Amino acid sequence: MLSNYFEDFHPGDRWVSRGRTITETDIVMFAAFSGDWYQLHTDREWAARTQFGRRIAHGLLVLSVASGFWDLSGGTVIAFYGMDHVRFTGPTFIGDTIHAELEVVDKQEKGPDRGLVKIKQEIKNQHDQVVAAAVLQLLMKRKPGA
Amino acid sequence: MLSNYFEDFHPGDRWVSRGRTITETDIVMFAAFSGDWYQLHTDREWAARTQFGRRIAHGLLVLSVASGFWDLSGGTVIAFYGMDHVRFTGPTFIGDTIHAELEVVDKQEKGPDRGLVKIKQEIKNQHDQVVAAAVLQLLMKRKPGA
Amino acid sequence: MLSNYFEDFHPGDRWVSRGRTITETDIVMFAAFSGDWYQLHTDREWAARTQFGRRIAHGLLVLSVASGFWDLSGGTVIAFYGMDHVRFTGPTFIGDTIHAELEVVDKQEKGPDRGLVKIKQEIKNQHDQVVAAAVLQLLMKRKPGA
Amino acid sequence: MLSNYFEDFHPGDRWVSRGRTITETDIVMFAAFSGDWYQLHTDREWAARTQFGRRIAHGLLVLSVASGFWDLSGGTVIAFYGMDHVRFTGPTFIGDTIHAELEVVDKQEKGPDRGLVKIKQEIKNQHDQVVAAAVLQLLMKRKPGA
Amino acid sequence: MLSNYFEDFHPGDRWVSRGRTITETDIVMFAAFSGDWYQLHTDREWAARTQFGRRIAHGLLVLSVASGFWDLSGGTVIAFYGMDHVRFTGPTFIGDTIHAELEVVDKQEKGPDRGLVKIKQEIKNQHDQVVAAAVLQLLMKRKPGA
Amino acid sequence: MLSNYFEDFHPGDRWVSRGRTITETDIVMFAAFSGDWYQLHTDREWAARTQFGRRIAHGLLVLSVASGFWDLSGGTVIAFYGMDHVRFTGPTFIGDTIHAELEVVDKQEKGPDRGLVKIKQEIKNQHDQVVAAAVLQLLMKRKPGA
Repeated sequence: MLSNYFEDFHPGDRWVSRGRTITETDIVMFAAFSGDWYQLHTDREWAARTQFGRRIAHGLLVLSVASGFWDLSGGTVIAFYGMDHVRFTGPTFIGDTIHAELEVVDKQEKGPDRGLVKIKQEIKNQHDQVVAAAVLQLLMKRKPGA
Repeated sequence: MLSNYFEDFHPGDRWVSRGRTITETDIVMFAAFSGDWYQLHTDREWAARTQFGRRIAHGLLVLSVASGFWDLSGGTVIAFYGMDHVRFTGPTFIGDTIHAELEVVDKQEKGPDRGLVKIKQEIKNQHDQVVAAAVLQLLMKRKPGA
Repeated sequence: MLSNYFEDFHPGDRWVSRGRTITETDIVMFAAFSGDWYQLHTDREWAARTQFGRRIAHGLLVLSVASGFWDLSGGTVIAFYGMDHVRFTGPTFIGDTIHAELEVVDKQEKGPDRGLVKIKQEIKNQHDQVVAAAVLQLLMKRKPGA
Repeated sequence: MLSNYFEDFHPGDRWVSRGRTITETDIVMFAAFSGDWYQLHTDREWAARTQFGRRIAHGLLVLSVASGFWDLSGGTVIAFYGMDHVRFTGPTFIGDTIHAELEVVDKQEKGPDRGLVKIKQEIKNQHDQVVAAAVLQLLMKRKPGA
Repeated sequence: MLSNYFEDFHPGDRWVSRGRTITETDIVMFAAFSGDWYQLHTDREWAARTQFGRRIAHGLLVLSVASGFWDLSGGTVIAFYGMDHVRFTGPTFIGDTIHAELEVVDKQEKGPDRGLVKIKQEIKNQHDQVVAAAVLQLLMKRKPGA
Repeated sequence: MLSNYFEDFHPGDRWVSRGRTITETDIVMFAAFSGDWYQLHTDREWAARTQFGRRIAHGLLVLSVASGFWDLSGGTVIAFYGMDHVRFTGPTFIGDTIHAELEVVDKQEKGPDRGLVKIKQEIKNQHDQVVAAAVLQLLMKRKPGA
């Protein structure tokens, strides 16, 4: 869906992504990359004593993985402008499989060659529970010559 | 700063982090981890033809690296609750060095053992330009026995 | 293209992928992953004394990166069956940007639910030189109910 | 074995490598590196519904790991020339341990300083099942002064 | 503790770090990074036949992870000078959680701006068994103007 | 050399390894893996103000890479017992190529099936400067039936 030009986004358009299983590897790799080794993600003994009872994935891990679900093959994204109302609404445990559901909620012209598209993203696990939600803002190309 | 209990956060408290140079390695590793290989980040020829003129770091890379700057040594974070008004305000190029500046902006009790703290985060490069900003919401422990 | 069902492949169909710049990071990461630290890929001094004059990417690195170019979003691949006549026809240096060009060359039914598709893959650099070529064999799903 | 000069390869020479257990980590790292996140390798729910019943390793993962088994300590490889008749003959599951068995099948002089050696490679799991096979072609140095 | 200036280290000072669970991912990532794929760490079948009965973490993996426990936020380390009497006193298995305990054992001035601090490091698992020990030598900054 | 049985080590035996270029990637990957992001290794601006003038590799990175140089193909190592007198004698900069030189310095029987071998390891760069040195202690198998 994110491979379209600005003109081809319409509020209400929906798209469902493939899934990816979040593994212990992902949790370790994200801690390594980010440098955030908070024990809730990386210390099995410590996490066992929290309300979650075990290690959970970092919220930014979940958002980062979801960005890999977006279909950007059109080369029409100019820039990732921002996100609003990001909420981490439930834990993602090792072995959970998540996917993203996107829905266009708004769009605004921003000049002769570009426009801003607002997309509601819900990230769900294999039980169809929303584990993270956000409104994405992307600056998209308008059709050449349009 | 994020190693405090809820009681010890006060609006206006500020903290400046160490820095980390964003390398080509970081950009490749983040594309690999996230699965988002958009050419703006990973194709030198393609990126050269954009308004940025070269590859730039993914917005979520910048946010993820910043999470590694937070001092969580107190073990007082219960959960990362969300973010508001995330804006990617400038490009981060290969070789730029970024750090985070945090400021407590609000706090609310959420029960006998926890409270929500809102923190404005600005991520700046070596030229003191803000490349990303957000308001973080963290659920923090209250002091035991308080 | 690889997101189609068996019925929708036709000899002569062509598809050109996005590109990816092969960085020093890729070369180190592939040596790390594979365990193949041959000096031609990983020792700058040693590589300087070869006919290539500098480090080059491993042939299997190039093939692996190309597999990331395939569009498999249809979920129609049953299995990667094999490759024939794989040839590494030129060096890939640090900083080169490669992409893949695919062309269907043959197809054969293999049962009521599947068929074998043969695809010629050429991997080219930014100077349009073929650095690797192969004939891929993929076992594809037939259309449900067809 | 691959540490020899061209003169010291003889058809029928055989060599058996060490083993390496293919872990969930390897599967995630290869998806990350290659950019190929096909669900057969990375989505536990999706893979459960295929004929394999669970996630399997990518064929190119298996070939890449096998290249790390080759003993290249002699520094006598000029270039990896190609592969013929690559076949992925069985699945590699998480936890399987693979090794390579090599046998020289042919050799040809290619000039005063080099020659081509053809080697049959079979990659087997802990049950002695062949999971991948190929004929490798390597361009090897001749003995200096020979 | 390692965030102090030379003047603020006193023999007998002690510090206990957070923990980190050593996962299969860590073992694979360390083998990949170091290039040391010894079967004791990476081949499940082979390791099962040793006195340990299963794969164990590399001694240098354990030391490397422990360096991530040190609090260097003061920016007062000039250089890591060396280690003495490094002993790997017990195995670390997949799933074990380790932490470091540091104790200042000696200090020596080394010039107007620096001094050498010797620190005994014990790395312990979740059963409070010492799995590695060493005496670290760090060259620390003296207080500016002191 | 480390692929021998205990009986075949003799004080004075020497072995020189292949080389590996230490890249910016290695420095970032090691910081990621270890969790040690000290600015001397990872912040270009900060490192520029030290006596080294730029980022240097972590001492444990250098030791870890050297362990990948050891030839362990014999499967005769029972355990890595320890290290003495580890000294980091010079900086390793991005782009330097290091190798290891090993020399047997002592050996002791430790029972009917094993013995301890002490090996002096010097790690040198492309200018033949020693950047790290240590005496390794390895517990080696004795010859079966010997």
